[in-house]
Amino acid sequence: MKLTISKNELNDAIQQVAKAASSRPAIPILGGIKIDVNHQFVTLTASDTDISIQSYITVEQEDTIIAQVEKPGSVVLPAKFFVEIVKKLPSEQVVIEVGPSFQTIIRSGSTEIQMVGLDPEEFPILPSIEQDNLLQIPGDLVKSMIRQTILAASTSEQTPILTGVLWNLHDGQLKFTATDRHRLASRTTKVDADETLQFSNVVISAKTLGELSRLIPDQNTLVDIVVADNQVLFKMDNILFYTRILDGTYPDTSKIIPQVFETELVLDTKNVMDAIDRAYLMSREEKTNIVRLATQEDGMIEISSSSTELGRVTEQLEAKSMSGQPLRIAFNSKYMLDVLKVIDSEQLFIGFTGAMRPIIIKPMDHDYSMYVILPYRTTN
Amino acid sequence: MKLTISKNELNDAIQQVAKAASSRPAIPILGGIKIDVNHQFVTLTASDTDISIQSYITVEQEDTIIAQVEKPGSVVLPAKFFVEIVKKLPSEQVVIEVGPSFQTIIRSGSTEIQMVGLDPEEFPILPSIEQDNLLQIPGDLVKSMIRQTILAASTSEQTPILTGVLWNLHDGQLKFTATDRHRLASRTTKVDADETLQFSNVVISAKTLGELSRLIPDQNTLVDIVVADNQVLFKMDNILFYTRILDGTYPDTSKIIPQVFETELVLDTKNVMDAIDRAYLMSREEKTNIVRLATQEDGMIEISSSSTELGRVTEQLEAKSMSGQPLRIAFNSKYMLDVLKVIDSEQLFIGFTGAMRPIIIKPMDHDYSMYVILPYRTTN
Repeated sequence: MKLTISKNELNDAIQQVAKAASSRPAIPILGGIKIDVNHQFVTLTASDTDISIQSYITVEQEDTIIAQVEKPGSVVLPAKFFVEIVKKLPSEQVVIEVGPSFQTIIRSGSTEIQMVGLDPEEFPILPSIEQDNLLQIPGDLVKSMIRQTILAASTSEQTPILTGVLWNLHDGQLKFTATDRHRLASRTTKVDADETLQFSNVVISAKTLGELSRLIPDQNTLVDIVVADNQVLFKMDNILFYTRILDGTYPDTSKIIPQVFETELVLDTKNVMDAIDRAYLMSREEKTNIVRLATQEDGMIEISSSSTELGRVTEQLEAKSMSGQPLRIAFNSKYMLDVLKVIDSEQLFIGFTGAMRPIIIKPMDHDYSMYVILPYRTTN
Repeated sequence: MKLTISKNELNDAIQQVAKAASSRPAIPILGGIKIDVNHQFVTLTASDTDISIQSYITVEQEDTIIAQVEKPGSVVLPAKFFVEIVKKLPSEQVVIEVGPSFQTIIRSGSTEIQMVGLDPEEFPILPSIEQDNLLQIPGDLVKSMIRQTILAASTSEQTPILTGVLWNLHDGQLKFTATDRHRLASRTTKVDADETLQFSNVVISAKTLGELSRLIPDQNTLVDIVVADNQVLFKMDNILFYTRILDGTYPDTSKIIPQVFETELVLDTKNVMDAIDRAYLMSREEKTNIVRLATQEDGMIEISSSSTELGRVTEQLEAKSMSGQPLRIAFNSKYMLDVLKVIDSEQLFIGFTGAMRPIIIKPMDHDYSMYVILPYRTTN
């Protein structure tokens, strides 16, 4: 293998795939980036077997030669060093040449780097996925749906299935659900897909979705999504992103979501977020994050927290509307803030079914997202 | 004590002093910020006994009322929570009122905070320093001198005196020296001071100088420096910064600095920094950071590093001038990079007195700074 390639194009592709290279590889090959060169494409691939990312560089782009391929071939190079050295190379052009035993020489300006390359035959093979039934969703919508749900996923490996986000597709409605048993987030959207296309119990690691989100371009692009038996493939521009579907059955969460409320509030999102943020600062000192909310007779609500050592924060907040029973309730302020930060609506609805029943939070502007937080049992 | 004060002015002053409050106080009072209020000034003070920072807010500034003082007084408030809550208060005005037993109430908009205040009588008393003999130095010069020397100070508490920077003043020359026994940095400047003013063995913690540096305004301001028996006071605008002088005698470093050289090089600072940075990336994988430099017959130098697992980086670099004996030497590339990053000169001089003798590095543009790095003993 021998080619001369633009440093910037090479660097962009490396940065895109590098996240999939294992930082503590069980075997060295999993900590590598595979480079495949033919006369049309330079393809970079990294895989830790849970996720795999592939990025293509087209050799000739609109009459511009991005890479001059002298000899096609493949090699695997250790990711960590390769990622860092390429961006620091002195010239705009980089020559990569693979010799016997995958010994690789990288030249740029007056810099010469010899790298111990690995055999590409040993690199994991990407899953082969039938691409018949694909779902097309705008990139920024995928990003919002991820951001608005992953906050509620569990971070504990004790319940692996809950570290994922559940995807369901029925009747042209795609729904994401995440819960760690203390809180729940769900987000739906209508999708343009073949009516026969539907799936359930597709659970994808929340951490992986976070990584995917960073790779989706900010401009208006479409993401093609293919759900296969145990893999999901995301295609965007020149990137393929494969992730494993988590094993196990996601619990039924429909029963914990209350449908009728004893107390209903409409609040200004920014005001309630700022007030809870201040109360959170005090509650954090007690490690519990307990913040209390109480309705008052004058259409105001009081938000408060206290710490035996530090003191007490008390906030008065006007409700945009209030109906039902008077209420005193305590909850984890960090969980509430996580929700308030992703609510894309100027006003929000909070419904309560009593001090010990789940709290429901919804944006006022639309019905696409819904959050549940379990309250704390407190003595007063 | 009771006053109404501008949130922004209060927040600025809190941010300035907060660094001196102990984050893990041995006694609660050392983790506090003291507020003293009279009809001229609101003064904030924090002290962990090693350093103390005081910031003044003038109550009336150019016909603008910054603070309305209803009742003078003092209180100490826990720094961590106070620092975070003030910047998040909802209104531009903050009311602070101290009641019996130093119970403090902070009001802003519809927020009310009760804080457990502490007795200001228990707060450390700031050192009283005779301010006769002061040194005036432009703020940006103090900042450069700190930045160009603290890199060589030791971070090991096993030799406490070497965690400091040595200050000497003789014949109107102020000199900073730092060394961790593997490398040395020195920086001198002429100062306008009374000729009788001189001192030696004034050693100030490098970490403290780093904190001081962040407090010095970027605009052209003068810093007043008063060196007393066991304290140094820095005065800038509305801030007083006190630091303890480290106990002990700083070692004599004059003997390790070579005066004659067997090999002399002049190099382009940016080129050699970039080349060593690339070699460093490889050397770091071996944990040793060893990079080699070898002169060549054609006026070029070769910089290289290798890792048994990864490979080898080789850099060719043209010397702007080269004289003396051919040379092969090995050194810690991280130490060299630390120096190259603070050399404020397009070209630099490197002098060698043999493979096992100290390497000296100096800017070509001026004689005010000088760096020494001890080479590595290597087998080839």
